[in-house]
Amino acid sequence: MSEGNILAMKSSPQGMSGLAQAEYEPVLMELISEWLDKYSMGAKLQVIACGMVGSQQGWREAGYTPIPSSPSDVDVTKPHVEDARIDVSILAGLSQSEPSDVMRGEETQIAGFFAKNAEFAGLICMPGTHSKWAFLANGEVVKFKTVMTGEMYSIICDHSVLRQLVNKNASDTQAFQKGVLEGAQDPELLLSNLFSIRARSVLESVNSNASAAHLSGLLIGTEIATMRKLMPSDTIKLLGSGVLAELYAEAFAVLGQSITPMDVTELTVLGLHKAWQNLTKEKYLNVS
Amino acid sequence: MSEGNILAMKSSPQGMSGLAQAEYEPVLMELISEWLDKYSMGAKLQVIACGMVGSQQGWREAGYTPIPSSPSDVDVTKPHVEDARIDVSILAGLSQSEPSDVMRGEETQIAGFFAKNAEFAGLICMPGTHSKWAFLANGEVVKFKTVMTGEMYSIICDHSVLRQLVNKNASDTQAFQKGVLEGAQDPELLLSNLFSIRARSVLESVNSNASAAHLSGLLIGTEIATMRKLMPSDTIKLLGSGVLAELYAEAFAVLGQSITPMDVTELTVLGLHKAWQNLTKEKYLNVS
Repeated sequence: MSEGNILAMKSSPQGMSGLAQAEYEPVLMELISEWLDKYSMGAKLQVIACGMVGSQQGWREAGYTPIPSSPSDVDVTKPHVEDARIDVSILAGLSQSEPSDVMRGEETQIAGFFAKNAEFAGLICMPGTHSKWAFLANGEVVKFKTVMTGEMYSIICDHSVLRQLVNKNASDTQAFQKGVLEGAQDPELLLSNLFSIRARSVLESVNSNASAAHLSGLLIGTEIATMRKLMPSDTIKLLGSGVLAELYAEAFAVLGQSITPMDVTELTVLGLHKAWQNLTKEKYLNVS
Repeated sequence: MSEGNILAMKSSPQGMSGLAQAEYEPVLMELISEWLDKYSMGAKLQVIACGMVGSQQGWREAGYTPIPSSPSDVDVTKPHVEDARIDVSILAGLSQSEPSDVMRGEETQIAGFFAKNAEFAGLICMPGTHSKWAFLANGEVVKFKTVMTGEMYSIICDHSVLRQLVNKNASDTQAFQKGVLEGAQDPELLLSNLFSIRARSVLESVNSNASAAHLSGLLIGTEIATMRKLMPSDTIKLLGSGVLAELYAEAFAVLGQSITPMDVTELTVLGLHKAWQNLTKEKYLNVS
């Protein structure tokens, strides 16, 4: 197991938004029950967890390790477990004091990224509900910035005056690219560019797929332009999966930069393995 | 009546968001019934209407008059009315083609502003759910820009990850002023400055009144800085009422500009009177 090979994988949609604190252990045990005898090799099965499971509304609050820090060297919190066959470690997130920022889960993706690119120095972009941009060097997170792009797209589509004009999650390459360029050209005009989408749909006939794609492009273009200006770097990597990562890759391309997304599921597993190695090393050090 | 004196005023909370098309006339008649004999002077009572009553979801769509235009010289639409004692004219809004923008209702406030300041040349700020900034000269609206500030404040407070951290509409002068400065300093960083409010509340103990005021200041500071840069002018007037106008006046003061808000209710009445004069003039011209 120390080689980090994946022997089995499972996933469940159940998470922080739907689970009470006391429900985490039973949900986990049901998910991994068949692994208990198979992989425990007579000892307790080590469970390493990251992400919102360690938030205040999660299983147990795991805090934040201040940067600069190696992303695989974060603090660990152990929730009380009833079942003696498992030992659970929840990884802390990372925090930055000036300007205030936090991440939780992404630090493990970054640890996985460093496992594959130990010498990397530059900027990484991790698209999401709250996109994270981090400047990495010497195996550490030097600084980072969260951008509320995905969440803004969602609440604008669902709750703003644009809601009747946009077909959420629709795609339209041309409208998306136009939005990216508009956002990148004048990122400070975001709050008025948003209204232009409504004005255009009132004055011209713009269909709701195009309006949604334009909105998406506008937000992503605004994000990329702003972050590249804030943390200039010749080297940028994109860590993401699925449709969202493809949209960001397209936006980067429109802005003149060809980037292939790196799959975050793979990076997360690598990061968890790295954290497990660190925990084991600590145990051996304590024993010797 | 041609002098524009106010003989009586009434208001009702009923409007576009709650009325079907067929309900406008009965609601209006109930409101003004006692005026019909009193002020009609034997002729039909002239009713001049502006704002969302002329939108697609209003009483009857009144279109938009393209700028550059005198704000009191907009097109007029007459909805069909059942009651022979009234004659209703709905004023069109103003539209701009590049970049696309529309206003509806604010043109009448601007007409009222010109009635008091005929020679004005400069920028005006009209705070609201969708704030309008307009550059005026020679009695015309030369260009304008809508900023979705108020609506963003509202949907962020109600629907975003910040919703549990902010006490909507709370005030906290210090936090508000800090937000204004932060927004004005880096208006392009709005989407990440929003997340900083969450990060600060996670890392430090920030109360929900301060977080709400900070959010409000951040959005308004971002708006003011961006619009002043977009439409530079030595002369700025603030047209607004109530708490919102006071907040904007405070934000302008924080950014080094002392501006006393002009009451929009008064300006709207002046603008409606101006429109009525134009309509009457047309009638006489048609007759002659």
